[in-house]
Amino acid sequence: MAGVFERVKNSLADAGVVPIENSTTGSILETYDSFIKSKLNITGEIYLSLHHQLAVNYGSKLSDIKTCYSHPQAFIQCRQFFIKNPKINIVNTSDTGTAGKLVAKNKLKSEAAVTSNLSAKLNGLEIGAKNIEDNDKNFTRFAIIGRNRSESGSKITLVIMLKHIPGSLYRALEPIAKRRINLTKIESRPILGSIWEYIFILDLEMEVNYSNLTGLMHDLQKVSSQVKILGVYQKGKINET
Amino acid sequence: MAGVFERVKNSLADAGVVPIENSTTGSILETYDSFIKSKLNITGEIYLSLHHQLAVNYGSKLSDIKTCYSHPQAFIQCRQFFIKNPKINIVNTSDTGTAGKLVAKNKLKSEAAVTSNLSAKLNGLEIGAKNIEDNDKNFTRFAIIGRNRSESGSKITLVIMLKHIPGSLYRALEPIAKRRINLTKIESRPILGSIWEYIFILDLEMEVNYSNLTGLMHDLQKVSSQVKILGVYQKGKINET
Repeated sequence: MAGVFERVKNSLADAGVVPIENSTTGSILETYDSFIKSKLNITGEIYLSLHHQLAVNYGSKLSDIKTCYSHPQAFIQCRQFFIKNPKINIVNTSDTGTAGKLVAKNKLKSEAAVTSNLSAKLNGLEIGAKNIEDNDKNFTRFAIIGRNRSESGSKITLVIMLKHIPGSLYRALEPIAKRRINLTKIESRPILGSIWEYIFILDLEMEVNYSNLTGLMHDLQKVSSQVKILGVYQKGKINET
Repeated sequence: MAGVFERVKNSLADAGVVPIENSTTGSILETYDSFIKSKLNITGEIYLSLHHQLAVNYGSKLSDIKTCYSHPQAFIQCRQFFIKNPKINIVNTSDTGTAGKLVAKNKLKSEAAVTSNLSAKLNGLEIGAKNIEDNDKNFTRFAIIGRNRSESGSKITLVIMLKHIPGSLYRALEPIAKRRINLTKIESRPILGSIWEYIFILDLEMEVNYSNLTGLMHDLQKVSSQVKILGVYQKGKINET
C-alpha cells in the first residue's frame, strides 16, 4: 500500500485506491498513518460490500479441500467458516486475486482460494462455498487518493492533534456541533512515542465550500495543537461485488 | 476468543484474558463486539510490549529460511521484514506459540516461526532475526474479564449508543468534560444494520467510587439512547516481553 502512495506522489499515477476501513476489523490504521505522513489528499471514497467465495477447481467439492489461499484480512473476515472446517490449512497470499490465480494454475482438487466472484470467474473457478464471510453486511471503505485537494464536496476527513487534558476533545467538537455538522466517524490514535498528545481522526458530512471550510478550520485551529485536512470529497455509496 | 467468553460465562473459568487493542493495527473490534453482547466485565488491563522474533532451529540462518509460521496478526506487525525477505513463504497458524512448537517438531533448517522470546526458549529454538516487528514501540492491550463488576478503580470502559444526529457526541461528552475526566480513548462503531444510531467506545480515567459513578451514569443516560459499563478497573502499565 505504501507503493500506491509513492507512485501517486511521484506522478507515476494520477490516482490510487487504498483501503481505509472495514466493518468487521475496523479502521486500517496503516492507511491513516500513511495519510498523516503524506501530502496526498483523499479525493473520493468507495464502499464495497465484499462477499468472499471459496473458489475451487472444476469438479472439486468443499470436502476435497486441504489447502486454502488468501489474504490474511480475508481469512479474518471468514473466521467462522475456517473454525467449522478445521482440516483446511490456510496459506497467506499478497491479495485475494493472486490466491484465485494460484488455485487455477495448480489445478489441484485439494486447493481453494478465498476470493471474489469476479476473480473466480476470471480464473475459471467454481464456487465451492458461497458468501463465507462471518458478517454478510461486511463492507470495506476505500479512499481514492490524488495530489490535488478539492474545495467542494459533501464530506471531509480531517485529523486534529489535541493536548491530552480533560475536556480537550469536548472543546474541539464545539465548532462542529454548533454548525450542526454530522460527525460520521471519530477515532482516537495515541501518537507513538508521545503520551501527552492524541490524534483524532474525524469524518464530517457537510456541503463544503471555500467560505464554510475556512470558517471551520479557523475555529478548529483555536482549540487544537494541529489540524490537517486529509481530503474533501463526495460521499460514496455502497457497491455490491 | 469467543471460547474465553463462553468459559468465563459458564463458570468453567474465573477469569479470562482477551486482546482489545494493538498500537499498530488498532482496536480489536471482535473483542468489543463480544463485550457488547456479553454480561461479563473488564476487571483489569495488561499492556504487553510485544517483540517478535524469527525463531529457527539450531544451526539455521535467515538465508536458509523458506517457510515461516505464525498468526496472521503477527505477520501484519512484521510486514516490512517480509517485504525485505520476499522468498520466505508465510503460513498461518492459530497462534504464535503453535508456530514455535511446529518448527521445533519438524526440525527443518528451512523453517522458522515468528514468535516470542519465551516461546523460542521453551521450544529450544534460536533467534535467526531479532525484534522483527515494524514498530518497536508495538504493544497490545489485553483485558482481564470476569463475571463481577468492581465498583472502584482508576479507569472505566463504557459504550454509549447515540442517535446519529449533529451534535449528539458533543452533548454526550459534556458530562465527562465538566467533571474534568480524562478521556483516553474514543472510537465510533456503526451499528451493523442500523444507519440511525452509532455506538461509541470510551475509556475514561477517573478515581471511581459508587457516588461519582452513579452521578456520571445518570448524566450520560440523559444524553444517550443507551449506556453500558464494560468494566471498572485499575489502569495498567506496559510490560516488556
